[in-house]
Amino acid sequence: MIGDPAGVGPEVVARSWASGELHQVCRPILIGSGAVMHQAMRDCGLSLAINIVNSLTEQSDDEGVLDILEPTEFDSGSYTPAQDNLSCGAISAQWLDEADRMARTGECVATVMAPISSVSMKMAGVLDKVVNVEPGQSYLFLISGPLRVMHLTDHMPLRQVCDVITSELVTSALKMLDTALKSWGIEKPRIVVAGLNPHASGVEEDQEIAPGVARAQSIGIDATGPEPPDSVFRQCIEGRYDVVLAMTHDQGHIAIKTWGFAGNCALVLGLPYVHTTVAHGTAYDLVGTGRADHTMVLTAIKTAASLVAGKGFLE
Amino acid sequence: MIGDPAGVGPEVVARSWASGELHQVCRPILIGSGAVMHQAMRDCGLSLAINIVNSLTEQSDDEGVLDILEPTEFDSGSYTPAQDNLSCGAISAQWLDEADRMARTGECVATVMAPISSVSMKMAGVLDKVVNVEPGQSYLFLISGPLRVMHLTDHMPLRQVCDVITSELVTSALKMLDTALKSWGIEKPRIVVAGLNPHASGVEEDQEIAPGVARAQSIGIDATGPEPPDSVFRQCIEGRYDVVLAMTHDQGHIAIKTWGFAGNCALVLGLPYVHTTVAHGTAYDLVGTGRADHTMVLTAIKTAASLVAGKGFLE
Repeated sequence: MIGDPAGVGPEVVARSWASGELHQVCRPILIGSGAVMHQAMRDCGLSLAINIVNSLTEQSDDEGVLDILEPTEFDSGSYTPAQDNLSCGAISAQWLDEADRMARTGECVATVMAPISSVSMKMAGVLDKVVNVEPGQSYLFLISGPLRVMHLTDHMPLRQVCDVITSELVTSALKMLDTALKSWGIEKPRIVVAGLNPHASGVEEDQEIAPGVARAQSIGIDATGPEPPDSVFRQCIEGRYDVVLAMTHDQGHIAIKTWGFAGNCALVLGLPYVHTTVAHGTAYDLVGTGRADHTMVLTAIKTAASLVAGKGFLE
Repeated sequence: MIGDPAGVGPEVVARSWASGELHQVCRPILIGSGAVMHQAMRDCGLSLAINIVNSLTEQSDDEGVLDILEPTEFDSGSYTPAQDNLSCGAISAQWLDEADRMARTGECVATVMAPISSVSMKMAGVLDKVVNVEPGQSYLFLISGPLRVMHLTDHMPLRQVCDVITSELVTSALKMLDTALKSWGIEKPRIVVAGLNPHASGVEEDQEIAPGVARAQSIGIDATGPEPPDSVFRQCIEGRYDVVLAMTHDQGHIAIKTWGFAGNCALVLGLPYVHTTVAHGTAYDLVGTGRADHTMVLTAIKTAASLVAGKGFLE
């Protein structure tokens, strides 16, 4: 999904395609607009051919050709680049819908979302089309090289987090995580669970997190914890664990953003297919310059391909 | 203060002294035991002379001579190296007391604590002699190169943190921090305040943190925030701010420990003098090997000297 037409999504997608790396790991197909991609290529000084397809049977599989599905007509005169537009929000939702439909019907095995604008989608009243994580059902998973974090809770006030953490939730999240890791090719996943309080010492650890971890261990999951929240991320970076289960949004996000590794990638766990996205936004200040860095979207695509193929995380 | 006799404190102190760097920035004097330092030098293969002094007038100021105050006789046969000992806990408390007394009477301008064992001090029933931070009175301040963090709360359950944060506390902490930074030679301190909740968006931000920051701004303090907790640490590393005011222990500690800069140093703000310490422990596994890294205690000493001299943080 090429991202919001007014942002850098189409440009970084074009540059990723032109890198020649995509076809080595997958059979990519774009969901978006030929006209928007045409402009993006011009901005980037690229000259890939455009092949508008109606179905996957028309896919060229040629790395010099952009295969694009246009589920809906998009009027490329309907928006102003480098700013939020209602029309862009509306079309983003339709493209996301199409990607979701294709993944659910098995037409594709993974979806990747280039940066969208939540403001534009809000303007169009379709922000609910972006996958929202919900404890017990789906989780935000961030990957930054060897630092990998699943978040038990996401955009939730800390006060509420204290009440939401139950041993059942911890166990079920660990089960989902362990199953996912194994399906991605990590044979014996080592998971470390962060505590909630300083030094992992508190009521929530004693009454909920520790029993939740113990129950997971009793069914054969290699989970450790609760461990001090300030130690687990460095331990993961150093290879002692494959993944950290963080209790809060900021435990994980502070670690990821402060560490400073460049190739971040986000993933939603709990969908029936692999769905990755980038950690950056529409970067309106770079739109049209062809200078937006495409590393992150390339990482998101390669990560999705690697996980689906059961080859684990990227080296 | 040479640290717990059974830990690596005496060794890293000896190696720091032997580096020749201390006398370039201060007039150092050790509080501890000549016998313990004698053994530490032997373990490190060093041959500094030992000068036991009764008062500061007897200080040699010679970098080849360890000037040591022995406020109390310490039986160096009373403990087993590389483990927790009641006698070591007891003497640590006495040494800390003496350092505190000297600083409060102006005999010295800063104190540095080499690693102590909290277990040993607990065994001796004197753990209360270690400075404990208390919101409204004193704060833990961590320095890791350009990443500097003051913690509004320390070892406190998250649930309690939500209730402890008031606008008055935020303002008074900002005042104390701003005053300290100026006294350390940072003319126009730029402080960024982390929020408590994801994206700094919540009740505590609206009702307490934002009004607390606004009041500080109204009296001329250059404070920004509340900002998303996951962004502020990287912004500080990149030089946009001098210090982060973190709301919780783990906001700051996750950032510091995950970032991975080597020369960490801790400081207690709210004492009438500069008091620094190291971020590592007694490292019993390295005791007697002479291989314990002395960089951190050297950083703690040089930081104290630089701040007291109004020269700001180390480069």
